[in-house]
Amino acid sequence: MTEISLHKPILDLNDRLAAENRALLDEQGIFMVNLLASPGAGKTSTILATIEALRNSLSIAVIEGDIAHDIDAQTIKKQGIPAVQINTGGACHLESRMVRQALDTLDLSTLDLIIVENVGNLVCPTDFYLGEDIKVMILSVPEGHDKPLKYPGVFQAAEAILLNKIDTMPAFNFDERQFRLEVKRINPQALIFPISATQGRGIKTWTQWLARQVEAERQVYV
Amino acid sequence: MTEISLHKPILDLNDRLAAENRALLDEQGIFMVNLLASPGAGKTSTILATIEALRNSLSIAVIEGDIAHDIDAQTIKKQGIPAVQINTGGACHLESRMVRQALDTLDLSTLDLIIVENVGNLVCPTDFYLGEDIKVMILSVPEGHDKPLKYPGVFQAAEAILLNKIDTMPAFNFDERQFRLEVKRINPQALIFPISATQGRGIKTWTQWLARQVEAERQVYV
Repeated sequence: MTEISLHKPILDLNDRLAAENRALLDEQGIFMVNLLASPGAGKTSTILATIEALRNSLSIAVIEGDIAHDIDAQTIKKQGIPAVQINTGGACHLESRMVRQALDTLDLSTLDLIIVENVGNLVCPTDFYLGEDIKVMILSVPEGHDKPLKYPGVFQAAEAILLNKIDTMPAFNFDERQFRLEVKRINPQALIFPISATQGRGIKTWTQWLARQVEAERQVYV
Repeated sequence: MTEISLHKPILDLNDRLAAENRALLDEQGIFMVNLLASPGAGKTSTILATIEALRNSLSIAVIEGDIAHDIDAQTIKKQGIPAVQINTGGACHLESRMVRQALDTLDLSTLDLIIVENVGNLVCPTDFYLGEDIKVMILSVPEGHDKPLKYPGVFQAAEAILLNKIDTMPAFNFDERQFRLEVKRINPQALIFPISATQGRGIKTWTQWLARQVEAERQVYV
């Protein structure tokens, strides 16, 4: 109880700044994805595969959120894609003000799509709206099919769920049917895209869907 | 900055209640492990393997922390081991007051070892001392060898690090040497136990070490 009341002022401020981020992006017709997942679910490799599939048709930038280090931003930059590293210095989630600082370093007039890689955490980032158009989450097969039961919040918040590392399904007794049933129960609208980011499987279906969302945004705002 | 100052009263209260938990456990000569890991790293299967190895020599109970559901406590109870489920209702970590409520439901006079399975999260639980004797963390091979770089706090806080799912190492290009170098850099004292909880590999070495810690605690306090 104490915690919730102490947290409220932070969330209110965060939401106000998120609305500002959103207005800024709308002005430029930029679509922003807030990408959520546990550590090691494959956020960076999914972003790399997504860039590879869409870079010829869309202008993309990446905002990397990590507790520490800039190894992920370095990896993205090597692909010739603008990347900004945010180090939260211990905080378990990105906040709108951090994203705003990152947006201010990008040339927004040239961009169509910004992918925000949130801190690896299935819990806290869900509560902090950053001004994104959609939340996308990754669950990787080794984490197990029972995760929607245990972390319902993030599965409920995501418009799209990428089920990554599907090539390892036989090794982990992952019950895809059970997983889909659970997701359907808590978030009937969510789309599930099975992928293997490192092997490129399923990337075409996922990125075609994403490109359609970006295009719809552009038609409304530009 | 705002966040840190608002958080402080919670942490102070938490530490006070943690000290009370610790005193209660010391009175009874009970050793408590705070087990930290990402979702799906294998906390519950590691606990099951640990119970299997130690149940003839030690009296064990488990406190299960989850955002939602009691599937893990049910699994433990099926082994005939006392298990208490804590549902945090959204909170990303256990707090001392929750653990105290769980302790109050256990018959402490019969116990040697309590394993607390924290909420699946590599960030927030690190900051909340529960009165445990040691923090143990699990990193699973599919999460990748670069995790100490990105989540230094938890690797720094852990007395022992269980590297789980080692049977999947070939499939994930996990560089164990690099992993050990990084851990050594941020926490030179940490012990690393490679295990496969589901296959039983490495469990003997880990549980023998754990049993020695429990024994040392008993000699001091009982």
